Amino acid sequence: MALLEFDPYDRGCPSRQLLDRIGDRWTVLVIGILEDGPHRFSQLSRRVEGISQKMLTQTLRALEADGLVLRTAYPEIPPRVEYELTALGRSLLEPLHALVSWASEHMGEVETFREGAPVA
Amino acid sequence: MALLEFDPYDRGCPSRQLLDRIGDRWTVLVIGILEDGPHRFSQLSRRVEGISQKMLTQTLRALEADGLVLRTAYPEIPPRVEYELTALGRSLLEPLHALVSWASEHMGEVETFREGAPVA
Repeated sequence: MALLEFDPYDRGCPSRQLLDRIGDRWTVLVIGILEDGPHRFSQLSRRVEGISQKMLTQTLRALEADGLVLRTAYPEIPPRVEYELTALGRSLLEPLHALVSWASEHMGEVETFREGAPVA
Repeated sequence: MALLEFDPYDRGCPSRQLLDRIGDRWTVLVIGILEDGPHRFSQLSRRVEGISQKMLTQTLRALEADGLVLRTAYPEIPPRVEYELTALGRSLLEPLHALVSWASEHMGEVETFREGAPVA
């Protein structure tokens, strides 16, 4: 890979932790949903099947702390809180799409391999 | 995201576990090294700074089990074992490159944000 200012191969580089964050299953799925526009917590919770409330809260807080997601609380009754991607968050869509697409497209091959097909 | 036969948004879909696997920090870094050609365990261990022997073993076994990496043992003295990407493993290079590049290129912005810069 090309040499860059930040190098995740270097154990001390903060980009390694960032790589952990963005490669995380829940991060990938939540960002994919937010591509469609702002969502409330309950909407995200429904669309990302099986995510616990705790894990969704943690994922959103981490994304907010890194500037990838913007949380907006509307002063309504009952209060409404929405989450949306920032410009930085949107810049991550393309790489994450590629990852999700790869997993979807190649799952069949991986399964065939696991079942004992000969190596190509 | 487009509807596909395998959907990681579905809690029961095996592609969700595959997504976990391929988004894993160590998987990403090991596959990136193997792009340069076959490597021995000790070479991988040196290039992926900070990976433990146990974690490297686990990562390689998982990649082998999924058909992404081929392990070849040469009958020499001392025995030589090499790991290389399969065609399926090489197909993962492009999405993973995109992920590593994103982390390297945007780390500065994330750091600026963490330090309290205003949201764009």
